[in-house]
Amino acid sequence: MAASADRIGQIVDDYIRLVGSGTADEIVALYAADATVEDPVGSDVRTGHAAIREFYAGLEGLEKETRLITSRIAGGEVVFHFEIITRAGDKTYTLSPIDAMTFDDSGVITTMRAFWGDGDMVIS
Amino acid sequence: MAASADRIGQIVDDYIRLVGSGTADEIVALYAADATVEDPVGSDVRTGHAAIREFYAGLEGLEKETRLITSRIAGGEVVFHFEIITRAGDKTYTLSPIDAMTFDDSGVITTMRAFWGDGDMVIS
Repeated sequence: MAASADRIGQIVDDYIRLVGSGTADEIVALYAADATVEDPVGSDVRTGHAAIREFYAGLEGLEKETRLITSRIAGGEVVFHFEIITRAGDKTYTLSPIDAMTFDDSGVITTMRAFWGDGDMVIS
Repeated sequence: MAASADRIGQIVDDYIRLVGSGTADEIVALYAADATVEDPVGSDVRTGHAAIREFYAGLEGLEKETRLITSRIAGGEVVFHFEIITRAGDKTYTLSPIDAMTFDDSGVITTMRAFWGDGDMVIS
């Protein structure tokens, strides 16, 4: 049985909150042990908790906030548009990817693919 | 070589314009001969021009308009959020899916997957 829409919505909310203010370990706990992350789509795929932790560890310690713009859940999968705003010095970096996620029966993320390109980063 | 970002952006523009005011044949011409359409995600996958034409033929003759909300192109693929507004009698049906598309080297669509659920249709 696929993860329920309610469960998927909860994971998306948790994911966006934790990318904004959580630790890499907390984010990794949302993923299956053999999950894959492709961020951005077209880059090397990271497989498993250690590689995924390394990816999110790069975000730790940055001053940032996140918010969900919109999501669509269908067939046990989700795509969602969200925004991550990072401040460094006197600059603000705003990136708003559309992420696609799949899940296993127990309700953890099995694949995450983030769609964004260089042109989607706004610096102000 | 994957389809270029420019070419993909052009296909998305054409697709949204033709879903709004084109014929099923014009839309089908954007697809590869053995392309697949899963709309919504989780429903039966339609394979090939005949099955895809049948799907879009159901939209012909409806009074409707479409607009692109936002798109993200990465790694030769695209996800895009758009809106389709259909009027029937005194009712307006607004659906805003997020579609995911892949392409072949010649720049035609090989897969289309539309993410939306019943809760994403607004009737006014």
